[in-house]
Amino acid sequence: MIVTSKDESLGLDGFYKESELPLLIQRKGMAVWNDGVVEILDRRKLPHLQEYINCHNTEEVAIAIEEMVIQGAFSISIAAGYGLALSAQNSITSMDGICNAALRLKKTRPTGLALSRVLDLCMIKAKNAIKNNLSVLNEIIKTTDAIASDLAMQARKTAQFALTKLNSGDTLLTHCFPDRSYVYLLMEAKYNNIMLNVICSETRPYLQGTKLSSWCASELGFNTYVISDGMGGALMKQNKINAFITAADTVCMDGSIANKVGTYQYALAANSNNVPYYVLRQSGPDMEYNNGDSVVIEERSGDDLLFIEGDRIAPEGVQGLYPCFDITPPELVSAIITDRGIFEPAKISTYKTSKAFLDSQI
Amino acid sequence: MIVTSKDESLGLDGFYKESELPLLIQRKGMAVWNDGVVEILDRRKLPHLQEYINCHNTEEVAIAIEEMVIQGAFSISIAAGYGLALSAQNSITSMDGICNAALRLKKTRPTGLALSRVLDLCMIKAKNAIKNNLSVLNEIIKTTDAIASDLAMQARKTAQFALTKLNSGDTLLTHCFPDRSYVYLLMEAKYNNIMLNVICSETRPYLQGTKLSSWCASELGFNTYVISDGMGGALMKQNKINAFITAADTVCMDGSIANKVGTYQYALAANSNNVPYYVLRQSGPDMEYNNGDSVVIEERSGDDLLFIEGDRIAPEGVQGLYPCFDITPPELVSAIITDRGIFEPAKISTYKTSKAFLDSQI
Repeated sequence: MIVTSKDESLGLDGFYKESELPLLIQRKGMAVWNDGVVEILDRRKLPHLQEYINCHNTEEVAIAIEEMVIQGAFSISIAAGYGLALSAQNSITSMDGICNAALRLKKTRPTGLALSRVLDLCMIKAKNAIKNNLSVLNEIIKTTDAIASDLAMQARKTAQFALTKLNSGDTLLTHCFPDRSYVYLLMEAKYNNIMLNVICSETRPYLQGTKLSSWCASELGFNTYVISDGMGGALMKQNKINAFITAADTVCMDGSIANKVGTYQYALAANSNNVPYYVLRQSGPDMEYNNGDSVVIEERSGDDLLFIEGDRIAPEGVQGLYPCFDITPPELVSAIITDRGIFEPAKISTYKTSKAFLDSQI
Repeated sequence: MIVTSKDESLGLDGFYKESELPLLIQRKGMAVWNDGVVEILDRRKLPHLQEYINCHNTEEVAIAIEEMVIQGAFSISIAAGYGLALSAQNSITSMDGICNAALRLKKTRPTGLALSRVLDLCMIKAKNAIKNNLSVLNEIIKTTDAIASDLAMQARKTAQFALTKLNSGDTLLTHCFPDRSYVYLLMEAKYNNIMLNVICSETRPYLQGTKLSSWCASELGFNTYVISDGMGGALMKQNKINAFITAADTVCMDGSIANKVGTYQYALAANSNNVPYYVLRQSGPDMEYNNGDSVVIEERSGDDLLFIEGDRIAPEGVQGLYPCFDITPPELVSAIITDRGIFEPAKISTYKTSKAFLDSQI
């Protein structure tokens, strides 16, 4: 595990300066531990308002994750790590309180597994701390800090591999906010003078494409466009898209992908129109899931489809449905791009034995 | 041509009572001629507000069509017919003013052809009226009235054919507002005690699915749900959809379909998941278009993707794209359902020679 750089002028990745990075991949763009308070950037209010939620206990962090204050499989896992630390603020002699806090945090979002893994690792460190009479609080914070750095470096390495698949002048289609690896892909493209056009599918109902993905691309100087979630296929058919790119909340051992609902439709359209679909997955597959059938798909409140900005737009009597993720089968994925290289989906299970860039534990 | 029923208690279709019909297929749910004023129901404000735009001249009708006060290939064609009548309110001895009015109205929406055909037919009637010293105004209104009745009867007949493809308990997925044929499909299902579940894709940016399609289904007592435009494929993959149903703004001679953008992606997903895709096309193909490549795709302002309810949600510097329609190739269409029966897409060009239910001119 890499220890967090103590040079605050460098970002978590240890390469770019913090001030060069778009806010969303800066330390303060996710969740930070600040003297007994977890400060979480409220992504729902971006890009126009930069507001922070201050969480003073585990429950407040859990609610922030549930209410989508922070989003993305890896970002929520960092928030969860600090949320666990909040349960260890007083002197601790047993694991009971920490275990309960971890259980609460694991219940927040069932589909991605990174969150569970961060918590499990923090628990191991906490147990060791108790055994060795060390500060449990410090160990959990140090572990979460180190994971945050690891994830940033993994994301940058993933981006470097992804960039080998793109050419200057290419137009990318994104769906939802493909998190750090996507932002590092844009950073690396800019650093290497590879100019991209970025089309962001808005991603209803939370509009992460409009609010987050387009923001990062535009901030870095790329031509950036927003479309509705029904338009990507039409643009692919018109040969206007060179690559479709998403993150993955879950990668199954057979190469199936669970990602924001809407991904599957775009993957089908990409496949039909010979547009490559690249999954930016900064780590390996989820060994818990053999295939897509075993993934738990989170259902959120359908009310999100009935209201816009607090006003009900649907007629009374109509209900909303909101399956949060969908499953894309491996045959629709061109490559899963990781920190250890570019994998055919069917071979993603070899990640664990492939030469490691980082000995990631997440 | 069928003459409009003089019995005002019956709807335009001549079968259902006006009061039994959902507002959107009542006379006052589209556009009506009222003593020198064209009253158009403002569909943008539905379902919560039932407001009418009063148009006193052709230009006002043209703007109402352009600004989506009224939507749908056939509904806008009726509004255009009455809009042409507004240019003939004073005593007319030459066609110049009427021709200019028709040109203006034809420029409003380029993709569907029904509007042009209604105007061309009204122009022929106007010329004959001048020759025979009849009232040009009356002829144009009478022609438009009769077309409105024809369209309603075609829609109901189309719905009757479509119903033979569905079973009680089936769940339909719709995209955008599939206009009269869809509403008559629901009416006929209800009349025949065939209970359907209806899932409406919201259809960003104007949300016709949420505002109009779900409203009609819910009003008629069907279980009705709204989803985002990215969710239909996932639901098909989960075997939750029995049929995907849309209207068509244009049907090409080879069976290609131009319809609201998003249709193509859903047609791909339907095809991949063995879900039939039925196009409700209450008339025949557009002989002007051999195939999808020749269809003019209307581009609307991309700003519609950047704002919600008047508030800008996208960051500054980001642009929006809004191709209004997409093209679905015939191999993704299970059947084109018309007033003359159910056609394989590849055989839709035989519509013109098939036994006519109505000798439709539109």
